[in-house]
Amino acid sequence: MLLSAPKLSISPSSSSSSSSSAAACSAPLLFPVKKSSIPARNFPSFLHSATSHISLGVPRAASSSSSPSPMIEKETLETHRPHTFLRESDEAAAFSSSSSDSAGSVRARFEKMIRDAQDSVCAAIEAVDNGSKFKEDVWSRPGGGGGISRVLQDGAVWEKAGVNVSVVYGVMPPEAYRAAKPSSDNGDIKPGPIPFFAAGISSVLHPHNPFAPTLHFNYRYFETDAPKDAPGAPRQWWFGGGTDFTPAYIFEEDVKHFHSVQKSACDKFDPSFYPRFKKWCDDYFYIKHRGERRGLGGIFFDDLNDYDQEMLLSFATECANSVIPAYIPIIEKRKDTPYTERNKAWQQLRRGRYVEFNLVYDRGTTFGLKTGGRIESILVSLPLSARWEYDHKPEEGSEEWKLLDACINPKEWL
Amino acid sequence: MLLSAPKLSISPSSSSSSSSSAAACSAPLLFPVKKSSIPARNFPSFLHSATSHISLGVPRAASSSSSPSPMIEKETLETHRPHTFLRESDEAAAFSSSSSDSAGSVRARFEKMIRDAQDSVCAAIEAVDNGSKFKEDVWSRPGGGGGISRVLQDGAVWEKAGVNVSVVYGVMPPEAYRAAKPSSDNGDIKPGPIPFFAAGISSVLHPHNPFAPTLHFNYRYFETDAPKDAPGAPRQWWFGGGTDFTPAYIFEEDVKHFHSVQKSACDKFDPSFYPRFKKWCDDYFYIKHRGERRGLGGIFFDDLNDYDQEMLLSFATECANSVIPAYIPIIEKRKDTPYTERNKAWQQLRRGRYVEFNLVYDRGTTFGLKTGGRIESILVSLPLSARWEYDHKPEEGSEEWKLLDACINPKEWL
Repeated sequence: MLLSAPKLSISPSSSSSSSSSAAACSAPLLFPVKKSSIPARNFPSFLHSATSHISLGVPRAASSSSSPSPMIEKETLETHRPHTFLRESDEAAAFSSSSSDSAGSVRARFEKMIRDAQDSVCAAIEAVDNGSKFKEDVWSRPGGGGGISRVLQDGAVWEKAGVNVSVVYGVMPPEAYRAAKPSSDNGDIKPGPIPFFAAGISSVLHPHNPFAPTLHFNYRYFETDAPKDAPGAPRQWWFGGGTDFTPAYIFEEDVKHFHSVQKSACDKFDPSFYPRFKKWCDDYFYIKHRGERRGLGGIFFDDLNDYDQEMLLSFATECANSVIPAYIPIIEKRKDTPYTERNKAWQQLRRGRYVEFNLVYDRGTTFGLKTGGRIESILVSLPLSARWEYDHKPEEGSEEWKLLDACINPKEWL
Repeated sequence: MLLSAPKLSISPSSSSSSSSSAAACSAPLLFPVKKSSIPARNFPSFLHSATSHISLGVPRAASSSSSPSPMIEKETLETHRPHTFLRESDEAAAFSSSSSDSAGSVRARFEKMIRDAQDSVCAAIEAVDNGSKFKEDVWSRPGGGGGISRVLQDGAVWEKAGVNVSVVYGVMPPEAYRAAKPSSDNGDIKPGPIPFFAAGISSVLHPHNPFAPTLHFNYRYFETDAPKDAPGAPRQWWFGGGTDFTPAYIFEEDVKHFHSVQKSACDKFDPSFYPRFKKWCDDYFYIKHRGERRGLGGIFFDDLNDYDQEMLLSFATECANSVIPAYIPIIEKRKDTPYTERNKAWQQLRRGRYVEFNLVYDRGTTFGLKTGGRIESILVSLPLSARWEYDHKPEEGSEEWKLLDACINPKEWL
């Protein structure tokens, strides 16, 4: 099923005629004005993507001379971090809604969770990286919300490490709302534009040493308000996210450790989570044209709203808190392992696969590129360098071949 | 306007029930089975793309375990080059068609032209590259046609050079035929599957030296037969192609030389060609999310059928023959220029842009990835290595800045 993207160009001035407190001018971030199609179930794409937060990072004015300029508001760089990106007026509106009495506090607690996770992950990275410091960019959007981008480049251990959070507001057209909400609700209601809220943390960490794996994690939360002209329509919310890792070589003890930490986090909530989200991860990070996964997986979930909201908030928090114990011990063990030129070249080839996945398949990246997100925030997920050799085939039975085999045929590690 | 891709899975067995001599089993190469959309005017995408030939290179059986497997026939590697990839039966059918009496010979002459061009370009590259030799793969398809892939990797001058030709047959569903042909013909005719023929040469040449530019060229010819059950329907044909170059640094004499050779080739046929195709090139190689072209352009044209067919064949031939005089003198001049680490890093960043364009925008590459083309042939266009730095901004007025400025604001060089 395909949903043609509505050719909207909601301008800041037209949004100001609405009584909604959310920024209508951010809608084009969700809806490319050019010809495109958006899978209905997966709408809005960036909210379901593995690098969602990055892509919803920083919208900016389109500068293209050869294409119509969608009305996307430009981000503003700020000189200091605000205590919160939430808006008082919006929080008050959320609390006054009859359909949910705790949504406001979920927003606030989710923001606190991702900002705490950003702080603790960056501190752990800096400690291992011989005291290198992340460069921080804080930005806000006139329409509401903002974010904090942190990047460490050319460190002692990591060649590129990005840890970003964002908390944004917007308005989705009714078509998108109908597409996004459960089909059983697709009745006679014809709602107007729907204010939404989205927050997330996203991170990609690429080390220098070919025996030290790349890590990616992303946790996000999405909410819509009830439509203004259909007060009986239900509020929607969902959680998404995951943590996965991408070694160039397999150390079975590392893979087992990484997956066992993911499983422990999952098992605290539901024994079905780990097997389900492990498979979801293997399926999501699939480079179709290669018939390979980009790495050795982890967990991934999306559109999660069929559990108690408080339970899912705790689950996302547990997952984010598991990043450091899952990853840092592996880095400590591998960061100084001696390696050869061949090891480095193989890592670079696998980094090429990482680039292929992110530019061709990752929903957050591809959607961000189409909709004018801040390009440096979106593409901070790419490695510092990558390589493509024609028709490279690792020798059967070699260590490189074993990694490739595990990317082609995902294994149960536990 | 969007055309949803028909969810066809035409199998070799179903095609054999047709009396058509063209291979129906190649149709899935054109029609992704998964959710997708194809711009109607630009269908079939690979035939209109800057790297079309590569993408229509070598279809192979889909090996994905997590997606439905489209019925794409696997290429067969051959031990020697055939005299021609054309089929006698098909040539005879073409000559017997009442709608065109020279199409058969255009096919044959186009094949000869691209194979001659492949030979001469490879010979010129090998001569400059201290006698390095291209590695050749010859392949054929059971359904008809085949190709010759030549790659030179890690040479003295070029880090990666690919020069590929292919000559393939297939069948396009009626929806695609209606989308591809002029709208004035979209009357009451409801044709069956349409046999088509496509041939092309495509090449990307990436040198080591950051002062020596990357070159890309591609020339292609496309034909459909009249539909079997609508003999009055017109046969369609068109030409496409172009030659463009991508330096990391501007030497104005090089840019003027390159563009003047393109202009000379164009001016032999129509004074409107160079300005029109120069602008088309600037528009096509646009990295929308960066607001930059990938390089300094050249010429590009597509869907060209509103001139005499013989004239366009001669024009494509002239363009292909202009590759060596346009490019090789620049390489001779720059291949040994001393350079610094900074020069190399900048070249690598621009190579990153090349990767972004090819994976995100190039129609041939993106379509080839979706439809199961031979991945090594499609991605031979990627550089051996590339680089992404967070938020890299060349210093205003620097040589790097000048190149970037010319990619953002295309110039008239002549």
